[in-house]
Amino acid sequence: MDTGMTDHDDATALITRMGKAARAAAIELAQASAEQKQAALIAAADALSRDQARILSANDKDMQFGRDKGLADSMLDRLRLDPDRLRGIEDGLRAVAGQPDPVGEVVAEWDRPNGLHIQRVRTPIGVIGVIYESRPNVTADAGALALKSGNAVILRGGSESLHSSQAIHACMAEGLRQADLPETAVQLVPTRDRAAVTAMLQAQGLIDVIIPRGGKGLVGLVQREARVPVFAHLEGICHVYVDAAADPGKALNVVLNAKTRRTGICGAAECLLIDRAYSQGPALIQALLDAGVEVRAEGELAKIPGTVPAEPDDFGREFLDMIIATRLVDGVDDAIAHIRRHGSQHTESILTEDDSAAQRFFAGLDSAILMRNASTQFADGGEFGMGAEIGIATGKMHARGPVGAEQLTSFKYLVTGDGTIRP
Amino acid sequence: MDTGMTDHDDATALITRMGKAARAAAIELAQASAEQKQAALIAAADALSRDQARILSANDKDMQFGRDKGLADSMLDRLRLDPDRLRGIEDGLRAVAGQPDPVGEVVAEWDRPNGLHIQRVRTPIGVIGVIYESRPNVTADAGALALKSGNAVILRGGSESLHSSQAIHACMAEGLRQADLPETAVQLVPTRDRAAVTAMLQAQGLIDVIIPRGGKGLVGLVQREARVPVFAHLEGICHVYVDAAADPGKALNVVLNAKTRRTGICGAAECLLIDRAYSQGPALIQALLDAGVEVRAEGELAKIPGTVPAEPDDFGREFLDMIIATRLVDGVDDAIAHIRRHGSQHTESILTEDDSAAQRFFAGLDSAILMRNASTQFADGGEFGMGAEIGIATGKMHARGPVGAEQLTSFKYLVTGDGTIRP
Repeated sequence: MDTGMTDHDDATALITRMGKAARAAAIELAQASAEQKQAALIAAADALSRDQARILSANDKDMQFGRDKGLADSMLDRLRLDPDRLRGIEDGLRAVAGQPDPVGEVVAEWDRPNGLHIQRVRTPIGVIGVIYESRPNVTADAGALALKSGNAVILRGGSESLHSSQAIHACMAEGLRQADLPETAVQLVPTRDRAAVTAMLQAQGLIDVIIPRGGKGLVGLVQREARVPVFAHLEGICHVYVDAAADPGKALNVVLNAKTRRTGICGAAECLLIDRAYSQGPALIQALLDAGVEVRAEGELAKIPGTVPAEPDDFGREFLDMIIATRLVDGVDDAIAHIRRHGSQHTESILTEDDSAAQRFFAGLDSAILMRNASTQFADGGEFGMGAEIGIATGKMHARGPVGAEQLTSFKYLVTGDGTIRP
Repeated sequence: MDTGMTDHDDATALITRMGKAARAAAIELAQASAEQKQAALIAAADALSRDQARILSANDKDMQFGRDKGLADSMLDRLRLDPDRLRGIEDGLRAVAGQPDPVGEVVAEWDRPNGLHIQRVRTPIGVIGVIYESRPNVTADAGALALKSGNAVILRGGSESLHSSQAIHACMAEGLRQADLPETAVQLVPTRDRAAVTAMLQAQGLIDVIIPRGGKGLVGLVQREARVPVFAHLEGICHVYVDAAADPGKALNVVLNAKTRRTGICGAAECLLIDRAYSQGPALIQALLDAGVEVRAEGELAKIPGTVPAEPDDFGREFLDMIIATRLVDGVDDAIAHIRRHGSQHTESILTEDDSAAQRFFAGLDSAILMRNASTQFADGGEFGMGAEIGIATGKMHARGPVGAEQLTSFKYLVTGDGTIRP
């Protein structure tokens, strides 16, 4: 009667079965033509458009389940689909279909003195696992990017969105069928059982990389427990540093945008560092206050009326809200030292007209994205021109920054000789 | 008196201390100029040349220790240094010094319609751990490649070569000192205690990637127990497939070279697949027999006098010796299926004059290196023109094939605007 154990065994068996099917599909998918993958994505978009009523009614079931479960309004909003949002998902599929196909791209080639010709070409990674929370659109977005890059994918959506995800997944399967590609190239874990997540995290040899999409709780769990590589960022503790040589107009615009455009995304600024030698600091703080931001200030800045005193742990904290921590620093080196201590290697921006300060900031920090005179809110695959992104990574292995189709590839060397032997 | 526990704790404390020092050195090293790193490598080579007598006498101690321990002659040979081998190590340092510096290289750049300019530039990974066996030259080779790519490195050599490695390491430290770089950029684990290896494998957050250099025992241990990413290949089970459309002269030369040039390296061929439609198969087998190769043959081929019957587990076996497994296959698709089942994703070569067969072989397989009309013995960073290599990887994440300085890098995005905000 040890149901925990039984669940675990069932989940492991399920994921092993799905993983083997994915591995087999991946071999086929790796050799599919660009046109075939494109056709599958377009057919999936067509199916999505045709099946609108069925998807919305599946979503109604999830919404009812969510309301019964007492989900917060913000969670319900993420879960909700409507014709507009469905059109967005459909457009996303068509956009990915239209992107260049990364597989087979010759990344580098050269000749050797002995006549060997060497090419380095992109190949799919293999099998990708995506673990996400309530947004059902990830089913289509992640499925499409994996397919585009020739990878099989195992999707494990939030338990609240199971019906919606299944309805969207059916459209992906329809697209694969129409393009004569194996349906098992995009699989959705058909259970709400959390043991399936654990089984995915431990599926070495069956899943090559796990991408978690969701809050810090989910990402932290995945990073701690995964036995397979993970592309993720735990937190986006983004810093904006206003240098002595900042243009005050640009600084004002960028700081306000970086903090307030959307506060809940990982590229939102959480900490404002102001050079002690910058004269317009108080005006900047005032503008934030006027915009309704809670400004948690340290030292001199805390004397500005309307600010609240910062606690030490406000630095290095991801507020995801209309709150910002701020302090004065002594020039760019001090800013770098602060960011190295408190940052999360996601995105930082320097405001300056001084090339050498910008140069120092770019060289002295090692975040995935460093910006000059630009808002941290641009930390996004779409804004980078990558089409779509499956997430943003802060690790230094393989993928970093916005992860698009290209970064879901590996490579192999193709070497051509003419009976060439090694002396 | 639980000395096992004490050893483990000691080793963990030691590696933690070394890891923190390496992390600090890595920050400095990441910002060092190409000239500074080059100067350090040249100064190390000079020191090596000057200290020849001291290094050789340290090596004498190791050789004496090895003989007392009853090491096999082949092990003693790997351990042995002489003026010629030392010159080889010195030349290696100068060669790496002369290579282009990968750090800071702009790998891609583009503009966005909103005026943002985006650059993707190479950065070091951080801290690399290298675990190797008796060859003391790895101390210099791996140290040099790590330094070139701006990474700090923790070296853990074989216990038999400790004195030799320490003497060589002293030259590396001398080079770093002369170039005003932190000596802790290249550290050598100063103990024979095996617990240090375990501590390195578990040093998450301190060591970013582990590279094992040695036999299957060492690599298997590292792959099983590492909690940090590993660049490695467990085995080089390289296949040569002779297609119906092979040129018999090229096939003969390449097969003999792939098997016999050196049998102990990972790029040596271990299995010969012959298309049933290729008429010169028996001549090929005869040439291998004449060269002194033990040919373990299956089916028709086993009827050729001088061959021995192959056991099923001879396929997928790394002989590292004058032995080859061979069987007939039905064309390129059958060869692909055999290699997928028995290969180790290292290096495979097709002999054919038929472009479409070669194309199929290149597309249908996913080994790190695929060759056409060339010997598998070319699977080597030097032969690829990468200067030096720190090893060959068969994994699909981050690094693959010969791993040189370039593949020891990560990247970051540098984004420049002009007060650009996101709408």
